[in-house]
Amino acid sequence: MLLLYILSLLTSQAYLSPVTKDALFQYIDDHQNDYIQRLKDWVAIESDSSDPSKRNQLQHMMQVTKDYILQLGGNVEMAELGEQEYSPGRKLHLPPVILAEFGNDTNKPTVCFYGHMDVQPAKKEDGWITEPYTLTEKDGNLYGRGTSDDKGQVLALLHAVESIKKIGLPVNVKLFIEGMEEVGSQGLEQLVEEKKNTFFSNVNYIVVTDTPWLSVKPGITYGARGNCYFLIEVKGARRDLHSGGFGGTVYEAMSDLIYLLDLLVDVKGKILIPGIYEDVLPLNEQEKELYKGLEFNLDELQADTGVQTFLHNTKEELLMHRWRFPSLSIHGIEGGFSGSGTKTVIPAKVIGKFSIRQVPNMNPSVVEKQVSDYLENKFSERKSPNKMKVNMVIGAQPWLANMNEPQYLAARKAVKRVFNIDADMIRAGGTIPIAKNFEEVLGKSVMLLGIGGPDDAPHGQNEKISKFNYIEGTKLYASFMQELTSF
Amino acid sequence: MLLLYILSLLTSQAYLSPVTKDALFQYIDDHQNDYIQRLKDWVAIESDSSDPSKRNQLQHMMQVTKDYILQLGGNVEMAELGEQEYSPGRKLHLPPVILAEFGNDTNKPTVCFYGHMDVQPAKKEDGWITEPYTLTEKDGNLYGRGTSDDKGQVLALLHAVESIKKIGLPVNVKLFIEGMEEVGSQGLEQLVEEKKNTFFSNVNYIVVTDTPWLSVKPGITYGARGNCYFLIEVKGARRDLHSGGFGGTVYEAMSDLIYLLDLLVDVKGKILIPGIYEDVLPLNEQEKELYKGLEFNLDELQADTGVQTFLHNTKEELLMHRWRFPSLSIHGIEGGFSGSGTKTVIPAKVIGKFSIRQVPNMNPSVVEKQVSDYLENKFSERKSPNKMKVNMVIGAQPWLANMNEPQYLAARKAVKRVFNIDADMIRAGGTIPIAKNFEEVLGKSVMLLGIGGPDDAPHGQNEKISKFNYIEGTKLYASFMQELTSF
Repeated sequence: MLLLYILSLLTSQAYLSPVTKDALFQYIDDHQNDYIQRLKDWVAIESDSSDPSKRNQLQHMMQVTKDYILQLGGNVEMAELGEQEYSPGRKLHLPPVILAEFGNDTNKPTVCFYGHMDVQPAKKEDGWITEPYTLTEKDGNLYGRGTSDDKGQVLALLHAVESIKKIGLPVNVKLFIEGMEEVGSQGLEQLVEEKKNTFFSNVNYIVVTDTPWLSVKPGITYGARGNCYFLIEVKGARRDLHSGGFGGTVYEAMSDLIYLLDLLVDVKGKILIPGIYEDVLPLNEQEKELYKGLEFNLDELQADTGVQTFLHNTKEELLMHRWRFPSLSIHGIEGGFSGSGTKTVIPAKVIGKFSIRQVPNMNPSVVEKQVSDYLENKFSERKSPNKMKVNMVIGAQPWLANMNEPQYLAARKAVKRVFNIDADMIRAGGTIPIAKNFEEVLGKSVMLLGIGGPDDAPHGQNEKISKFNYIEGTKLYASFMQELTSF
Repeated sequence: MLLLYILSLLTSQAYLSPVTKDALFQYIDDHQNDYIQRLKDWVAIESDSSDPSKRNQLQHMMQVTKDYILQLGGNVEMAELGEQEYSPGRKLHLPPVILAEFGNDTNKPTVCFYGHMDVQPAKKEDGWITEPYTLTEKDGNLYGRGTSDDKGQVLALLHAVESIKKIGLPVNVKLFIEGMEEVGSQGLEQLVEEKKNTFFSNVNYIVVTDTPWLSVKPGITYGARGNCYFLIEVKGARRDLHSGGFGGTVYEAMSDLIYLLDLLVDVKGKILIPGIYEDVLPLNEQEKELYKGLEFNLDELQADTGVQTFLHNTKEELLMHRWRFPSLSIHGIEGGFSGSGTKTVIPAKVIGKFSIRQVPNMNPSVVEKQVSDYLENKFSERKSPNKMKVNMVIGAQPWLANMNEPQYLAARKAVKRVFNIDADMIRAGGTIPIAKNFEEVLGKSVMLLGIGGPDDAPHGQNEKISKFNYIEGTKLYASFMQELTSF
């Protein structure tokens, strides 16, 4: 009875705020069981993009998503991406990308949401406490593969559209939903380029709904570090040699490589490559202030990682070094003996792998030259007859948005409205290629507004989303669309 | 007709040297096709000790060997070693060790030969130009798995026994032939201990027939380096971390490990651990002389390995650093990212692996302390909060025989007689655990008298023995037994 009354209110544009606000939220609360059921149905589809044997389920997932968007009254185009050669001579049909549209009122702003329907692999025996493809509610959390990354976030958005449509969409909504995110988004960049002057032409804002918060407090992501990934290859003999027969007689490629790797970074994480910090944006007072208000607990981080002592003692220092200062990590060595036990080999060719998380305004091509020059000089000083070469194999740029753009202001207002708290303005320590890609190709304002929790384990065992984040996140997306009209 | 005449000579003890010498060699030459055929039959048995599915063939190989020894008139005991747990809960019957005896004349010296009947794995697709288990003659070489290591060497010895028996064995011959050498000789040391006062009690000399020459010139091996194998484990977080989220905020275990590994050895192969060279036997003039006469070609080594510049320019310096000076090699890192491609991981726990080939009179337990003290000091200086520990997991001692013992003199005379050249007195750069084991447990004189060529590729693709080495090696073993009577 009450529901019918609320619905009658919702369908009337005459009762917008403040009554509508409450009614909208009430509607969402009243439908939460439906929303969880739909998430359950969608999680059950094993849309693992990395597994060729599950490609049918991934294709099915894209169809189910399309059908639901049609049911909500959207227009849908399925953009085909062709085939993928997943191993030499073996091809698979790529899942199409969903391009959808709700409304095309030229008086309203148009916001395009990005998300993905594929998931990481998951098997019970990996250490899941529940069946990974059977959504299971437990202690206020919804466990299952894809609950947080990214089916749960996309569904929260679609349910926001569903609920807000009852009172009329305040903005034009577009959706750009892919099925290959977890394996590198094949073909996506080209599709964005192709659709630049059609699908994307009237888009004002792009929102990526595939990101977690920093804490239990809602966060809006406005930047990400880049990644310059280097391989140092050192080559000695033509083949691996036995350390009994050759130890003490040859210049060993491995010790040359170890020498070079040890010149990269000191114990405190300071990068030793000359000039590397020159282009890092100076820290100003305003930015410092931003870090002070962030909700972040070092004790929790200690408990989570088992790390007793971090490189920095305060949350501000630690987060700055995660987000806005560069770092260098050595990942490993290819070509040596990496198995368990013992092997008395002198490896012929070894490849050291390290990467630099670079930040604005560092330029990957400058970084590449700084690293190459440094290592080549040092190797030349060493006077080893072995052959050394340095290659930068990834040069992903950092991304930094202007957080005073309208959609950021709208998102902050929406957070305040739903949660009665100021949003944390956060960044990602890793790269977010899709954000940089949208920004570069389309020249549009990009924002990451996700609803994942900091402990959702999106690529790990026991992935979950909290029921609170899922339902309140639905309200957040709905509120965001409403708030966007006021800027 | 001629053969019958020779045989009539051979069967008569009245015609020993010098006529017998030539007749013995002639007999061996006349039977070379039989000898090659038997090698072909034995190579065809895939006695790969590492492969549980081939254990039946390995057991069969031991039976075939036993039957042939019985056919030659030897007494044979098959010593059972029990079972091997090759993976948790899965057991395999270990092949028995053959303990055989020809003659027990207390007026004659007794020489015990060691060899093995198991082989390394081999598959055509690994890059063999012939079927590995089908003996194939090509350009004077006999290709096939086990031709050199060790079926060919054991058969040359057995054929030497067969031929010399025609004129009467000049010495008592014992055989100690195992089937698990390639996978670590399980149970062997214990068996040697058990048989110390029975089978081995009257043994004067032990000859290992499982070794190559340094060049085309016959070599007698009198020493081997040891092996102290170390693991440095550095542990940071409880789990691997993402370099995006954690780069710049944690003390990375990998960079600590790289720092420690870089402190071990310099570009010229000099070991940087304090005190490590203190116990190395000084080089004397007599030993220097020995190196001058060795047949060894650096150009061939360059061609074989693809190494253009060695650490030492002369054959003497190079061989001394292979055999009588210690060396340190870094083999690799476990726990980091060692695959191809890129992965942005901060490994939680990494294990660096290196080994020191130590020489007389270095002591593994002294080396262990020197290494541990050095690394612990250096790590403590670094002030990293990560956990580091050093473990020596192999401490195999070096072995050095007295080359003036009778069996060495006999072997040198035998080489001179068969090849009309002075033998090279050589060492092994690697360890020969069986030699040290025989010496320590039994307190007997041990010598390595093998007939493999320097390019036989015993563990590689296209293993071979040259027909020359196989047949002249048969003469060498026969002559050695004869010469042993004169000391």
